[in-house]
Amino acid sequence: MPERPPATVKPRVVKGFRDILPHQAAARRRVIETIRAAFERYGFVPLDTPAVEYVDALLGLGEEGSKNLFRFTSPDGEEIALRYDLTVPLARVVAQYRDLPRPFRRYQVSPVWRADKPDPGRFREFVQFDIDSVGVPTVLADAEIVMAMDEALCALRLDFRVRYSSRKLLNSILRWAGVPEGRSMDTMRVLDKFDKIGLEDLLRELGPGRTDASGDRIRGLGLPDPAVMKLREFYETHAVTDRAPGGGLDALTRLFEAVPGSGEAVAELGEMERYLRIAKIPPARVGLDTSLARGLDYYTGLIFEATLNDLPRFGAIFGGGRYDGLVSRFGEEAVPATGASIGVDRLVAAMEELGRVPKGWAVARVMMTVMDPERMPDYLALTREVREAGIPAEIYLGDAKSLKKQFAYADRMGIPVVLIAGSNEFEAGTVSIKDLSEGRRGSEEAATRDAWVKQRSGQQTVSRSEMIPVLKRLLEVA
Amino acid sequence: MPERPPATVKPRVVKGFRDILPHQAAARRRVIETIRAAFERYGFVPLDTPAVEYVDALLGLGEEGSKNLFRFTSPDGEEIALRYDLTVPLARVVAQYRDLPRPFRRYQVSPVWRADKPDPGRFREFVQFDIDSVGVPTVLADAEIVMAMDEALCALRLDFRVRYSSRKLLNSILRWAGVPEGRSMDTMRVLDKFDKIGLEDLLRELGPGRTDASGDRIRGLGLPDPAVMKLREFYETHAVTDRAPGGGLDALTRLFEAVPGSGEAVAELGEMERYLRIAKIPPARVGLDTSLARGLDYYTGLIFEATLNDLPRFGAIFGGGRYDGLVSRFGEEAVPATGASIGVDRLVAAMEELGRVPKGWAVARVMMTVMDPERMPDYLALTREVREAGIPAEIYLGDAKSLKKQFAYADRMGIPVVLIAGSNEFEAGTVSIKDLSEGRRGSEEAATRDAWVKQRSGQQTVSRSEMIPVLKRLLEVA
Repeated sequence: MPERPPATVKPRVVKGFRDILPHQAAARRRVIETIRAAFERYGFVPLDTPAVEYVDALLGLGEEGSKNLFRFTSPDGEEIALRYDLTVPLARVVAQYRDLPRPFRRYQVSPVWRADKPDPGRFREFVQFDIDSVGVPTVLADAEIVMAMDEALCALRLDFRVRYSSRKLLNSILRWAGVPEGRSMDTMRVLDKFDKIGLEDLLRELGPGRTDASGDRIRGLGLPDPAVMKLREFYETHAVTDRAPGGGLDALTRLFEAVPGSGEAVAELGEMERYLRIAKIPPARVGLDTSLARGLDYYTGLIFEATLNDLPRFGAIFGGGRYDGLVSRFGEEAVPATGASIGVDRLVAAMEELGRVPKGWAVARVMMTVMDPERMPDYLALTREVREAGIPAEIYLGDAKSLKKQFAYADRMGIPVVLIAGSNEFEAGTVSIKDLSEGRRGSEEAATRDAWVKQRSGQQTVSRSEMIPVLKRLLEVA
Repeated sequence: MPERPPATVKPRVVKGFRDILPHQAAARRRVIETIRAAFERYGFVPLDTPAVEYVDALLGLGEEGSKNLFRFTSPDGEEIALRYDLTVPLARVVAQYRDLPRPFRRYQVSPVWRADKPDPGRFREFVQFDIDSVGVPTVLADAEIVMAMDEALCALRLDFRVRYSSRKLLNSILRWAGVPEGRSMDTMRVLDKFDKIGLEDLLRELGPGRTDASGDRIRGLGLPDPAVMKLREFYETHAVTDRAPGGGLDALTRLFEAVPGSGEAVAELGEMERYLRIAKIPPARVGLDTSLARGLDYYTGLIFEATLNDLPRFGAIFGGGRYDGLVSRFGEEAVPATGASIGVDRLVAAMEELGRVPKGWAVARVMMTVMDPERMPDYLALTREVREAGIPAEIYLGDAKSLKKQFAYADRMGIPVVLIAGSNEFEAGTVSIKDLSEGRRGSEEAATRDAWVKQRSGQQTVSRSEMIPVLKRLLEVA
């Protein structure tokens, strides 16, 4: 490129964004494929929508994300922005394609973007995995969302708890407590903090405000004292005690008696409870929790959320609920809808914290070393034979001549087995197989530099016809 | 949501973008997974980079995409833009993480964005699937890229041809023809049109310009006449005739004799040819074509490109080459690199055109109808049993009471089999299984409305214990 001045640019990732390195990308993919398989068993169908939407479609939903859009101008001079969730694009699709089959049960796994202040562990781009049922007003659809989510998390071998409640119930409670109509959404956003801050701080935030651990002043909603007292009563006699697993139907009876106007909500929660039992989901894993509020404006019925039992402070790993009003934002028609969203990157981060994400980058399970570059045709043929047996394999492409350095590359990548062949092996019709993971199994601390010597014991020479069977045996063990 | 005025927004997709509907999304996923499996057999490791990069990293590469950025400002006031390819982010990553293992062989499958003028079939967002080898200067790395691409396209059961040539060879040819040094990149961009416009129009574009089919004037490069005549000579005696499959090594000998300074390029092309033969790839599928130019500035060595034999006018479905100078844009160090990019959405569009993308949306293979809503627990249990046998199944969630309408939904979605159970079946311990695809197999034109009647023949009642075996048999046939 002699025409262009070689301007140098500092390589750096945009603030609040990050690169997903191979071991993380592999973990993310495993998580996505496991979730996808669960959702596909339920018959949800895939949908992909563009990364950008018109700003008018994204604005004014009261959702936190809609306040922090990455906005820009299209080449046609129109105001567009990166999507901040997958629910609003779905509502847009449902309103736009009038002849979609109903029910329309779709999944979407895609990145979303929020121009928030980045925190450690909080990024401006993250992948969500959503399922939604559009066109179904019955609780069966909500229950199915929870069942499919439950199945996905079980398939990921996670120890979790799903809690569900109802926006309708919360509305009854707020009316009963005397919270002014116009303050109900603000109140719910504070109630949503119950798990994080506890009852006393929550009540202070509903009333006069409070000072947090770092001494910062948090403004209160200034609700009237009697309302705050009634909410205290509710939390102490219901929300806190009803969380006990298995208390579902009893708790509902008491709620119905205590909260005027809660009939419809209690009936729906009861139906949910029954479907979950039919599905043989244990109450300890999925159960009623009337302290659940969820922060989004657009919920209109049942709401649900899951947390990891091993990492309770990690926050929700999925959340969702019924939103019967969202589609009508794009047209006359009110379309019932319910769904939930898994924070895939959050889940991967949690699994990393639980030590469930291997650190090795390699996809290959076998590396062909190159002792004698003149023999390249033979090395390529050997590598091809391993691949054809269904074992991911790479041939060493670097410039290191010494086997020691080639082993060090394999070891660093986490490739468990290497093949070695020189003139001796070619003459004898054999190949040497070295299990690099054997040394590691004995001593995790074996430095890469010393690994070669320590691991000599893990080397065997076999005939060409034995190569594949031996590799298969080794890799099942390794 | 009583607080908010119910503003209505017209539902529409941003110009130049599109929704990927379920049958397309499923096809795209199958294509991606097939390609991924091929690349993983070669041991390429996954990497994900953010959708956005700093503008300075993306600008000034001479790449078409870099002229059409979706630019915006980060919350921190910095100039950022959506990535337009996956190669520049890789170069940034390699320069940024100094201790990456070398060789670093990665794959990435992600959307990219270009603020081009949208055309029919040309979108502003599309998915690319790239593999690259970083840190390897030898032709073996280029050959491996082509082999892995060849394997991926074979796995997709496509009829294609990969052509390769060399930027170094083109440089020798342009010097030999007397093309002024400063015009070489412009010249290559015109040479890249050879397949599209043919030799005569190409030569006019190199010289005085031409008028295209629609009467528009296309400016010529104004190269000196002797240079254009030498290029004609080259195309007539080499490029056009050398394309014959199998002519590789002979053609190279003639090139070496005809073009002064082509020694290094010819040696590399010869090495490529030998590796491909070792890999037993037939010359008719992958071969030398010295008319290949590729439009990107940054190539420095071997270049390659594939087209579909059934859809030659569809253009390249993958392309790539060696770019040893790109990483040094981000730092002092020159890092050898080579790679290629598959246009996934282009490939899916081609497969749609070839009739290889089924129109049905369904993921579920079985739908449980709901005859008697009181029996919901039984229907849920039946559905669960089907799922547990590994067969994707959904329960009908809609409000249609009649079986006919429920069948119509299944038929429209493309669900091949439905289950029916009413009091008769429950009492007898049986279930009815109806093969909706049977009618379709007989007559593709059977209208949804009439399908129910026509397909009655495809119904059988079996005992509960026979249900799963019968479903498995049916679905393997269906």
